[in-house]
Amino acid sequence: MPTETKDRIVTTSAELFRRQGYNATGIKQIVDEARAPFGSIYHFFPGGKEQLGAETIRWSGAMYGALVPAIFDPAPDVVTAVRTFFAGAAADLADSGYADACPIATVALEVASVSEPLREACADVFDGWLDSASERLTGAGIAEPRARELAIGMVAALEGAFVLARAQRSTEPLAVAGELMADAVQRALPA
Amino acid sequence: MPTETKDRIVTTSAELFRRQGYNATGIKQIVDEARAPFGSIYHFFPGGKEQLGAETIRWSGAMYGALVPAIFDPAPDVVTAVRTFFAGAAADLADSGYADACPIATVALEVASVSEPLREACADVFDGWLDSASERLTGAGIAEPRARELAIGMVAALEGAFVLARAQRSTEPLAVAGELMADAVQRALPA
Repeated sequence: MPTETKDRIVTTSAELFRRQGYNATGIKQIVDEARAPFGSIYHFFPGGKEQLGAETIRWSGAMYGALVPAIFDPAPDVVTAVRTFFAGAAADLADSGYADACPIATVALEVASVSEPLREACADVFDGWLDSASERLTGAGIAEPRARELAIGMVAALEGAFVLARAQRSTEPLAVAGELMADAVQRALPA
Repeated sequence: MPTETKDRIVTTSAELFRRQGYNATGIKQIVDEARAPFGSIYHFFPGGKEQLGAETIRWSGAMYGALVPAIFDPAPDVVTAVRTFFAGAAADLADSGYADACPIATVALEVASVSEPLREACADVFDGWLDSASERLTGAGIAEPRARELAIGMVAALEGAFVLARAQRSTEPLAVAGELMADAVQRALPA
C-alpha cells in the first residue's frame, strides 16, 4: 500500500484531533476523510487507533516543533521571536475559525489518565519543544535553569492561551500571554 | 426525584470530565457511578448529555472560581496568594495521581468547534474567573488594563501548566508557571 496513504491518514487524524479531540474521532471518519481503504489503518497501524494516535501526536509534535527554529533562528533577537511565535499562533487560530489549535494538548488532557502510550507520546513531544526552546534561550545568553523555566512558561502560556482563545473565540489571550512571555524573556537577557 | 440525585449526577460528571473528558464519558457510565436511575438524567436534563455537560461546566466553574476569594482574600498580599494558588493546584494534581485537573479546559478543547452551548458555558466560566482575579489585582492597586492582562496570564499559565503536568506526570510546570506569574504580579504592584 502506498505510503502516501499512510501520510494522508496521519494528517487527517491530526486535523480531526485538533478540531474535536481523540475520543470523538473514529476510525471510520478518519478513513472516509483521508479517502483510504478501511483495512489500510490496520496495515499501517497494527495496534489500531491507539498506535495511530501516538504516531499522529509524534508527527504533529515534530511539525509544530519545527516552528521553533523556523521562527527563532532568523529573528533579530529572542524577544522578537517570542512575539512572532504567539502572533503567528493567534493568526492561524483566527483564520481557522478558532478550530485549529494544538492537537497534543487536547489529546493530553483527554487521555493522560487512560492511555500510557498516548500520554508518553504527548510527554515526549513537550520534552522536545522544551529542549528546542531552551536551546534558543541559552543561545541568547540566558543561563540555565532560567532558560528552561522560560521555555516551560512559554509552552504553558501558549497551550493555556489556546484553551481560553478557543472558548472565547478571541485572540486576546494569545496576545496577552505572548507579551507576558516576551517581557519575561527580555528581563532574563544579559545586560 | 430528590435533588441529591441531581447533585450526584453533576459531581460524578465533573469527575469523569476531569479524568477522561466529555466525549469518552457516556450517560451509562455517569448513572452507574452516580448510582442514579437511567431515567433521572432526562428528568433533570431534558436536553440530555449536552445540557448535563453545560450544567456540569458551570457548576465546576463556580466551585473552582470560589477558590479565588478563598485563597486571595485571607492572604497577606496578592503575590503570596498567586504562589499559594499554584502550589495548591500542584498538590491536588499530584495527590490525584495526575488525574484531577480542570474539567473546563478539557471540555473546551474537545467541543469548542462542535457544540455552541458547551463552548459558551466554558467561555462564561473563564470570564467569571477573569473578573474575579482582576478584582483582587485592582484591589491590590494594579490599574486596568494591567490587572486584566495579569488575570488572563494567570488563567492561561494555570491551564497550560496542567496540560504539561498531566502529560509529564510532574508538578514542575505548575511550580514554574506560578513563579513566573508571581514575579509578573510583583512587578505590577505600585511601589
